[in-house]
Amino acid sequence: MEHKITVGIVGYGNLGKGVELALKQNPDFQLEAIFTRRKPEELTAGSKLVHISEVQAYQDKIDVMILCGGSATDLPVQGPEFAAMFNTVDSFDTHARIPEYFAKVDAEARKSGHVSVISTGWDPGLFSLNRLLGEAILPEGKEYTFWGKGVSQGHSDAVRRVEGVKLGIQYTIPSETAVSRVRAGENPELSTRDKHLRECFIVPEEGADRDRIEAEIKSMPNYFADYETIVHFISEEEMKANHSAMPHGGHVLRSGKTGADSTQLIEFVLKLGSNPEFTASVLVAYARAAYRLAKEGQTGAKTVFDIPFGALSPKSPEQLRKELL
Amino acid sequence: MEHKITVGIVGYGNLGKGVELALKQNPDFQLEAIFTRRKPEELTAGSKLVHISEVQAYQDKIDVMILCGGSATDLPVQGPEFAAMFNTVDSFDTHARIPEYFAKVDAEARKSGHVSVISTGWDPGLFSLNRLLGEAILPEGKEYTFWGKGVSQGHSDAVRRVEGVKLGIQYTIPSETAVSRVRAGENPELSTRDKHLRECFIVPEEGADRDRIEAEIKSMPNYFADYETIVHFISEEEMKANHSAMPHGGHVLRSGKTGADSTQLIEFVLKLGSNPEFTASVLVAYARAAYRLAKEGQTGAKTVFDIPFGALSPKSPEQLRKELL
Repeated sequence: MEHKITVGIVGYGNLGKGVELALKQNPDFQLEAIFTRRKPEELTAGSKLVHISEVQAYQDKIDVMILCGGSATDLPVQGPEFAAMFNTVDSFDTHARIPEYFAKVDAEARKSGHVSVISTGWDPGLFSLNRLLGEAILPEGKEYTFWGKGVSQGHSDAVRRVEGVKLGIQYTIPSETAVSRVRAGENPELSTRDKHLRECFIVPEEGADRDRIEAEIKSMPNYFADYETIVHFISEEEMKANHSAMPHGGHVLRSGKTGADSTQLIEFVLKLGSNPEFTASVLVAYARAAYRLAKEGQTGAKTVFDIPFGALSPKSPEQLRKELL
Repeated sequence: MEHKITVGIVGYGNLGKGVELALKQNPDFQLEAIFTRRKPEELTAGSKLVHISEVQAYQDKIDVMILCGGSATDLPVQGPEFAAMFNTVDSFDTHARIPEYFAKVDAEARKSGHVSVISTGWDPGLFSLNRLLGEAILPEGKEYTFWGKGVSQGHSDAVRRVEGVKLGIQYTIPSETAVSRVRAGENPELSTRDKHLRECFIVPEEGADRDRIEAEIKSMPNYFADYETIVHFISEEEMKANHSAMPHGGHVLRSGKTGADSTQLIEFVLKLGSNPEFTASVLVAYARAAYRLAKEGQTGAKTVFDIPFGALSPKSPEQLRKELL
């Protein structure tokens, strides 16, 4: 029987749970254990739960460790720490701090002889790949990234701080006008606020003044004042029924010119019913790549830019050329 | 001064001319010569034209040869022949014969110590990459490739054979209904004919019976009978003014499920004002990759599946991580 790629999951939040589910769709993987800082006996999972302090004992049992912690405080510590012991994959997404994070993980992974794929997922990740592709193929052009429709945690927190708001959620939505102008090859100058609008769903406290709430949200500096903002008032039941999923997505567009004056457009679109589950699926495909690169004898930190797509698929190069090229 | 990647172009049709133009947008390249089977003195180009029989003298002067011949008769011969002398890039697009073509080019390239990137462009090429990506990330899902709006040479030839047709052109167009159903996550079963409609623009001979022409086209077996077909009659002036460009494009969609029942959609879209100029721009980006892989000491035939995106960009890995990740 062919060797299954054995993996561990570090962190059992939405992303870790998504990875656990994604692995079930990929029969070439075997989940060895989920590592958590919480008390394993107090959690339920379909898989073995182990306290993170015992991770060292798993060094010979796990081909790739999938790090599912957050970028603010977990990964800056765990990334380098785990690269010293395992091949790893993570979704570190603080764009501005990627070079620094790469350097730290790279140093540990080289020292220990492991491969660490950092900052994968969809942005950074698949969107980054499409930004690079667009620029390389259409050097005379402009790139546009639109995010949404998806929940912004920061903006949802902001509406919930308004007096009289019981529950609230905010979706960032790409402006259809802006997307159409880019698709039409107009190459417009667009700021983040030209590209997006903000839609809020609010459950008001009983007796609260809806007009005041709406006015306060729409005039909130930084968050909403400069944006086209839509406010809906809904019931608590509606909030539960229609706003508990975690959809997201967006567009990466590259509009360029070739030759004399030919307009060329490349567009990549994601419409995600579940943001964490999709990110998890990307992590699993890159875990496969990490395993393969390590087997080839490569070491150090890698990003999506360094990894050929062939390494993401369970199929052989011959199969891929025959079936998908 | 940094070394410029020196390239030659083999074949000076639409694609070769597109490459000549694309190279002007990429300052890290230098075009050494264009090689042609025709008499160079009878052609005009902004660059040096050389008869193809003299190509061997250029082995030390050219880093990558960009093969711009056709897939039917040129490339099956030129691909292996040039791989024996140069690093090469080509757009061999007869999907069914790719494994055989790969084997022949690979053997020559390994023997001579060169890198040959085969079958790049947009399909095969960028569309293939997106088919692979979709399948690797959403293993439980369905893939849909739509082509167009673009001219189909075979179907245009067919309408021109109808009696009474002076000039004719046929566009393959993705069915909006079919695209919408896929985007909505319905995962429909769709044949090529469900996915596309066919639009013909006809300049009739003077006095020709338009109703008969239209009926003959619409009932033509294999080509049109099974498709939704639209026939327009236009003037010769209109044909020249509006139908001499070579637009093309299409969609690759992957619709899948993750977790319990989340619908996830990945879509890649191209809208190309000029099909040959865009293909040429892709060839140039992959010529950069061929040069880099050869410098690393790699040899043999490669496809888009084997090449990391980082190799397509003139930017350094550090720059890419900082600016585009």
